[in-house]
Amino acid sequence: MSEFELDWQREARIGIAEAVFCAGKTPAQIDAILESAGDRRLLLTRLDEAKFAGLAEERRRRLDHDPLSNTAFHGPHLQPTLDGPCIVCAGTSDLPVAREAARSLAFAGYRSTIMADVGVAGLWRLMRRIDEIRTFPVVIAVAGMEGALFSVLAGLVEAPVIAVPVSVGYGVAAGGYAALNSALASCATGLLAVNIDNGFGAACAAIRILRRIPAHRLDSQS
Amino acid sequence: MSEFELDWQREARIGIAEAVFCAGKTPAQIDAILESAGDRRLLLTRLDEAKFAGLAEERRRRLDHDPLSNTAFHGPHLQPTLDGPCIVCAGTSDLPVAREAARSLAFAGYRSTIMADVGVAGLWRLMRRIDEIRTFPVVIAVAGMEGALFSVLAGLVEAPVIAVPVSVGYGVAAGGYAALNSALASCATGLLAVNIDNGFGAACAAIRILRRIPAHRLDSQS
Amino acid sequence: MSEFELDWQREARIGIAEAVFCAGKTPAQIDAILESAGDRRLLLTRLDEAKFAGLAEERRRRLDHDPLSNTAFHGPHLQPTLDGPCIVCAGTSDLPVAREAARSLAFAGYRSTIMADVGVAGLWRLMRRIDEIRTFPVVIAVAGMEGALFSVLAGLVEAPVIAVPVSVGYGVAAGGYAALNSALASCATGLLAVNIDNGFGAACAAIRILRRIPAHRLDSQS
Amino acid sequence: MSEFELDWQREARIGIAEAVFCAGKTPAQIDAILESAGDRRLLLTRLDEAKFAGLAEERRRRLDHDPLSNTAFHGPHLQPTLDGPCIVCAGTSDLPVAREAARSLAFAGYRSTIMADVGVAGLWRLMRRIDEIRTFPVVIAVAGMEGALFSVLAGLVEAPVIAVPVSVGYGVAAGGYAALNSALASCATGLLAVNIDNGFGAACAAIRILRRIPAHRLDSQS
Amino acid sequence: MSEFELDWQREARIGIAEAVFCAGKTPAQIDAILESAGDRRLLLTRLDEAKFAGLAEERRRRLDHDPLSNTAFHGPHLQPTLDGPCIVCAGTSDLPVAREAARSLAFAGYRSTIMADVGVAGLWRLMRRIDEIRTFPVVIAVAGMEGALFSVLAGLVEAPVIAVPVSVGYGVAAGGYAALNSALASCATGLLAVNIDNGFGAACAAIRILRRIPAHRLDSQS
Amino acid sequence: MSEFELDWQREARIGIAEAVFCAGKTPAQIDAILESAGDRRLLLTRLDEAKFAGLAEERRRRLDHDPLSNTAFHGPHLQPTLDGPCIVCAGTSDLPVAREAARSLAFAGYRSTIMADVGVAGLWRLMRRIDEIRTFPVVIAVAGMEGALFSVLAGLVEAPVIAVPVSVGYGVAAGGYAALNSALASCATGLLAVNIDNGFGAACAAIRILRRIPAHRLDSQS
Amino acid sequence: MSEFELDWQREARIGIAEAVFCAGKTPAQIDAILESAGDRRLLLTRLDEAKFAGLAEERRRRLDHDPLSNTAFHGPHLQPTLDGPCIVCAGTSDLPVAREAARSLAFAGYRSTIMADVGVAGLWRLMRRIDEIRTFPVVIAVAGMEGALFSVLAGLVEAPVIAVPVSVGYGVAAGGYAALNSALASCATGLLAVNIDNGFGAACAAIRILRRIPAHRLDSQS
Amino acid sequence: MSEFELDWQREARIGIAEAVFCAGKTPAQIDAILESAGDRRLLLTRLDEAKFAGLAEERRRRLDHDPLSNTAFHGPHLQPTLDGPCIVCAGTSDLPVAREAARSLAFAGYRSTIMADVGVAGLWRLMRRIDEIRTFPVVIAVAGMEGALFSVLAGLVEAPVIAVPVSVGYGVAAGGYAALNSALASCATGLLAVNIDNGFGAACAAIRILRRIPAHRLDSQS
Repeated sequence: MSEFELDWQREARIGIAEAVFCAGKTPAQIDAILESAGDRRLLLTRLDEAKFAGLAEERRRRLDHDPLSNTAFHGPHLQPTLDGPCIVCAGTSDLPVAREAARSLAFAGYRSTIMADVGVAGLWRLMRRIDEIRTFPVVIAVAGMEGALFSVLAGLVEAPVIAVPVSVGYGVAAGGYAALNSALASCATGLLAVNIDNGFGAACAAIRILRRIPAHRLDSQS
Repeated sequence: MSEFELDWQREARIGIAEAVFCAGKTPAQIDAILESAGDRRLLLTRLDEAKFAGLAEERRRRLDHDPLSNTAFHGPHLQPTLDGPCIVCAGTSDLPVAREAARSLAFAGYRSTIMADVGVAGLWRLMRRIDEIRTFPVVIAVAGMEGALFSVLAGLVEAPVIAVPVSVGYGVAAGGYAALNSALASCATGLLAVNIDNGFGAACAAIRILRRIPAHRLDSQS
Repeated sequence: MSEFELDWQREARIGIAEAVFCAGKTPAQIDAILESAGDRRLLLTRLDEAKFAGLAEERRRRLDHDPLSNTAFHGPHLQPTLDGPCIVCAGTSDLPVAREAARSLAFAGYRSTIMADVGVAGLWRLMRRIDEIRTFPVVIAVAGMEGALFSVLAGLVEAPVIAVPVSVGYGVAAGGYAALNSALASCATGLLAVNIDNGFGAACAAIRILRRIPAHRLDSQS
Repeated sequence: MSEFELDWQREARIGIAEAVFCAGKTPAQIDAILESAGDRRLLLTRLDEAKFAGLAEERRRRLDHDPLSNTAFHGPHLQPTLDGPCIVCAGTSDLPVAREAARSLAFAGYRSTIMADVGVAGLWRLMRRIDEIRTFPVVIAVAGMEGALFSVLAGLVEAPVIAVPVSVGYGVAAGGYAALNSALASCATGLLAVNIDNGFGAACAAIRILRRIPAHRLDSQS
Repeated sequence: MSEFELDWQREARIGIAEAVFCAGKTPAQIDAILESAGDRRLLLTRLDEAKFAGLAEERRRRLDHDPLSNTAFHGPHLQPTLDGPCIVCAGTSDLPVAREAARSLAFAGYRSTIMADVGVAGLWRLMRRIDEIRTFPVVIAVAGMEGALFSVLAGLVEAPVIAVPVSVGYGVAAGGYAALNSALASCATGLLAVNIDNGFGAACAAIRILRRIPAHRLDSQS
Repeated sequence: MSEFELDWQREARIGIAEAVFCAGKTPAQIDAILESAGDRRLLLTRLDEAKFAGLAEERRRRLDHDPLSNTAFHGPHLQPTLDGPCIVCAGTSDLPVAREAARSLAFAGYRSTIMADVGVAGLWRLMRRIDEIRTFPVVIAVAGMEGALFSVLAGLVEAPVIAVPVSVGYGVAAGGYAALNSALASCATGLLAVNIDNGFGAACAAIRILRRIPAHRLDSQS
Repeated sequence: MSEFELDWQREARIGIAEAVFCAGKTPAQIDAILESAGDRRLLLTRLDEAKFAGLAEERRRRLDHDPLSNTAFHGPHLQPTLDGPCIVCAGTSDLPVAREAARSLAFAGYRSTIMADVGVAGLWRLMRRIDEIRTFPVVIAVAGMEGALFSVLAGLVEAPVIAVPVSVGYGVAAGGYAALNSALASCATGLLAVNIDNGFGAACAAIRILRRIPAHRLDSQS
Repeated sequence: MSEFELDWQREARIGIAEAVFCAGKTPAQIDAILESAGDRRLLLTRLDEAKFAGLAEERRRRLDHDPLSNTAFHGPHLQPTLDGPCIVCAGTSDLPVAREAARSLAFAGYRSTIMADVGVAGLWRLMRRIDEIRTFPVVIAVAGMEGALFSVLAGLVEAPVIAVPVSVGYGVAAGGYAALNSALASCATGLLAVNIDNGFGAACAAIRILRRIPAHRLDSQS
């Protein structure tokens, strides 16, 4: 019996295609999974450069791999055409997670815009962009350290705000728990959280929301 | 100078009216806040029976207080007319939190349906309701203990699923952390979480989402 | 042998008078300590109403007790005449801690100004006060929940900012750890922290700073 | 004096042969232990490839080493002939732990069946196998992330279910604590837990149970 | 719609009857649950004396309530006739949990024997009972503090040993985590654990095992 | 069968008489234990006033109960004649724990001296007593908050220093963990620790040491 | 759009120049940031030797890099001329953090003095320097392990004392939490804390204080 | 000014010579420290092979380095002649810590005996050695995993027992916290604990005790 069986029914069931989390898998196991996938589309996450280099060369050539976010696309190319979220983050250190979200959205057909260096320590940088941020249907906020960005942002925009805590930082910020707890304990109402560093999960949650907005739903079914 | 200044601009800014968290306040402080509110509408949360009993009698008579959820409505009555979420929970112990969500939604004009005793230990109870759950635009899942309900549900429905961990339980379940971590670490993609026991926050997040769905947006602006 | 020996040398040594932390002491022990103090000035902290009611009646009459902050002054009255900090907090729930700071400052001769309801979820409330806050030599920020106020404030003012996390809140905010970690992990540079609920400590730290500013030093030595 | 003394009496006393946990030992120490064992059978756990490569070459050739589970058999070969547990897990990342359990059972003479990719996010994968799982005398469930599999499974089968949390995952799932706490806080009654990643311990616990079932007991004494 | 729906199918499905965890429920809610149960048998756990006293008087008279273990039996009486586990504990403080296990077993038809004051600090007390303990098909070990009993016992007996950590103790023993971690980290192989204070869960796990032993299975189906 | 069996062999085995930890026991259970003890000597710890008041009146009259330390002596009176430790603590809040140690020592025949208010924030108070402290064979240091006393003391005296962390304090000091970790992480060499609030344990450890010093050993055997 | 936008307004706004935290950035990202900075002055922190070696060679030559503190200065050289803090630490292991503080101060124009090996286990080493320490306007205390230095120092000097916990140590000292909690729970009044290993933050806080002292303020504005 | 100043007074003050903790120091820093020591005796701990290899070659030749315990002796050789503790541990994984204790004792002139593989899972191995263990003046117990050895041992011997938790193990045993908490929460009276992996600290504590026993004191002063 095969040791893995992908959940190909998932897209029909919940609207999100199957994805492969590569962190706990060897290159050989990933090769075998892709082999079994045939031509079907698959998103790969946490595929770092060392592991990517360990894949069969031919497979490597056919994957669209992004080293900053450690994601890869397998299968036919799909041009993102649907309007998606604004992804807001405080700086360079948050970019890998922000891009994991953006790439996961692109794989599912959604465009997104990353706004980096919008940290709250220099509030003016956020304030001059806030009107633009308010035009998006959903906001994904990516922040490490103390995650004050989450509360400030959720207090300023009307859209659903999905907080993605990031594990950068040291001392009490190490591991991303200070940022996670800031998201959960926020004094701003209606803020939502996903796991630390989980840009992919934030993207999937955004997709669940976007698919409820008729314009998007129609597009995604055409 | 007054010691409090409510954020009356909030509804215009982010679509959610100001609310008063009563847990850290004395009855006298709550009385003063309501006095300053005049006729304006306010939602009060964490107003337990002892604290409610400590309010001025006349004020008590004019509040719509619900002892199970410890919520109260202040100001003109608003009939909920908008379609809102399905609130799913495992049992009687989760009802106070589920009702805090339902009451917060009702205050904002949204109907909701609570389905209790749908725990995963007896999976048949969830499965016979799943088709009905799938008809709702948003799902709020309320669970304590190990919170396995969150993952099972998010794996079965297409809508956004907001997990509210509940602090019932003992040993490693005490305080709701086991359920919270289950929500955050879920293998089901796109699950969203709010703070432990935060039924109000889940409701506000659902409202942010529902307001993005045109039918709802139109209604809420009429 | 007496079981306690107050550190009467402390004021001469470090500029801050001895204080009595009443939380772990019985009314009888507090009575004995005050008896031993004679006419000397003493600040009592964490003296809640029940414990205050347990003191000898005559002593109660001679103490200046404040039930909101659970502080009391013993000994000759001193009019606060020195310019002290601005104490900023998010709301009613933070007032007991903010007042513990204000009372500790007053006991040492410093005036202070409490600005309540300046939470970051409604940023406009902070922004309209920010120019006034900037006029103070030191800022004490008091906040529970996720403590985002600390970072926003420290990013806007030039003065030393002392963060006092508050233990209000529930779930991951319970106990004040989320706020404490926000203060310590802040992306705003040069933010300082004291223990959770430690309004007294923040006041003493502010005094250490204020005494270094010549105007203040002269006054306090006259 | 020898620095180690294996517990050769253990099999007679509790029915489980001595095993060597190699994680904290150098190759030289492991060589010395095996030298002292002579022809006696020993199970080695946590013997990773680097450490295995450090053993004396002749010894390496006589060990039956499995690199996926990091286990090795020393001594005479024993064909597994007794009916053992079903080992259920969610995916590729859980296989090293699942195989540690299977190998430990095989060393003691028990057959087992691994069912991988039976995660609850795609419930249909578990449901189509559930009748087969119900035929086993004992079930070992291996899961990381949020460990929802444990509760769903224990709610569906009558057999003893032993949960083995796995340390794969990131953020709040890191280290396996979210899964462990799910096992302990489960709403499904009568679920049992062992330490994180402890496939060997789950196997030993299963053997304790299986030896109580007369058919098995007879076999194991023949 | 009723707010609760008991899992009456559970006994047929997994061999363990439905039980009601009373900790998070009001007396009125418990009354309503029992009303809905009619004549069917139900085990109630965590029903403390105050809550029991709050039930309708007639219902109280028909419940078999045990104040030490806070358990009650509802419905027709069943005489325990099946051979069940030995329940071993260190002392008086562990008895409430030990009795919760014994009562849960009795409700399901199993006899059990409690051996108290068998702590490892005075090893002779355990050693003089060990031969008797070895005659039982399953052992439930109940211990707080550091839980050293678990390892010593599991090293001496061949039967499955189920560890129930107890939340007695102070300092690092408070809450039962030191004992829980001792059970999970035990150097004795094949030890199994349930949640802190979960005597009911240990009983259910023991029943799952006992039902696999043919003698027991036959009896329980007659 | 009796539900408890005291370890009367303990004094012969390890030199420390049996003691009864009353925290998890009802007055009725304590009465029964004392009944079974007859005339034999027993130390009772954690016997607070409410529980003491619940004992049978005649028994109360025959117990030597100390309400500050919550200890009681049962059985024939023994005059402390052996030279014991110096017990050093920072203030009034530490006295209950310091006295639990002193009373446990007295019960075993050892004199001790409590020096209170020797905290390190006013170092002069410790320094003027240090020469006297150096004359004792063993030092027990009792401290809450940050426990800096432990390191300063262990750096100044040659005797064994046993640190007893105390659970007074708030915020990060709550529960005594900050003090415990200070004791364990101390930069002063050879500092020893017992559990938080464990004055009894510190006394027993001191007795183990004192019995090794011939003068003491002779006395205790006469 | 550029992915980063430095907060060049910060110096004007709060008196502290922008700094770049290099820990989560690649050499290529740091190169790009420095490129965008042009001639403007920038402080780089957490720039370890490996990362420094990865920068473009020409840029390396123009940076003033200090390998012990992992800091670098970019832009025109500024001679420190203002009187700054005394930086006190216990030993060699604390030097990297102490120097990060000293270098951050120097970058901003402040002289500082590092006193190493002033640990409290040998109190005489601190006492012989205490009069010199008392001459400084601000004290930065850097300590790992149990951090007893913080309390002893704050009890002896009148100046503001900023505690920087250090993550050296093992067991309960690992990560610096024992030292951090000692700083926060200190019995010495008015002690201030920054995040673990945050020498840069302590320097910035000291600058906020020093700028309030007129002599310093004049200098820094000339 | 030199950046380090060893506490050469320590031996005169507390009877234990200065030691150098090498974990946070570079080889160059260690070289400089040893240079400054001249001929004086120094114990080096946590000097792993890589760091030892980095020292100046001539210095390496003059150090007595033990790679298992990562300790080294600097200065004139001293033959251990005083009777010291029995060091008891469960197995090979505990030997590095046990030897750090033995080497620290040897450096101070004390002989010790290591008994390995005396774990409690096979109690017979401990019981056959217990009479020999009882002949030692002090016992050091070294154990990882769940640390049940500490309680069993302290319940069987009269001597002071110093528990050294070890950080071997995985899951809840990782880091040594389960063993540490077992030592602190032990039901055996008078057990003493030092930090995780702190064999050196246990040795120093044993020396403080041994120096109090006249025979030892005389020897050590001759």
